[in-house]
Amino acid sequence: MNYPVVVEVTLRDGIADPEGATIEKALPALGFTGVARVRAGKSFRMEIDAVDESAALEKATALAERLLSNPVIENAVARSAVGS
Amino acid sequence: MNYPVVVEVTLRDGIADPEGATIEKALPALGFTGVARVRAGKSFRMEIDAVDESAALEKATALAERLLSNPVIENAVARSAVGS
Repeated sequence: MNYPVVVEVTLRDGIADPEGATIEKALPALGFTGVARVRAGKSFRMEIDAVDESAALEKATALAERLLSNPVIENAVARSAVGS
Repeated sequence: MNYPVVVEVTLRDGIADPEGATIEKALPALGFTGVARVRAGKSFRMEIDAVDESAALEKATALAERLLSNPVIENAVARSAVGS
């Protein structure tokens, strides 16, 4: 069966995030105040053929760590995308 | 109060996604079979000061549509990041 999965790749805590910092600095001038700690990351949606959902998430985590992220500076988290 | 929010920006259906297509093509050679419909997007995490969670999500949606995405080709969805 095909399971929809979303993988989110985020920078690890302590790794500088110039994109997030730039967005955060631009927000007040555009009328958005009270927004802090903006961090930019990547998301990947896919459909994974597996026997059950936990096998699909395991495969997604493995490929995310191998192919979609740099584990030195990034975290990759896979979750089910059913209903989102 | 500060509410943690994650905004996911994805390409609209029908918009070509060369990054996702390239990932999908590379997967079998790396030992990952049964992965289809790979779509690449962006994620943004932030903390939003608001009176309640729905106000925080409303503010996140507004700034995502104005600043974080191109509504012509992208969708932006904000959700609570509590517990994730």
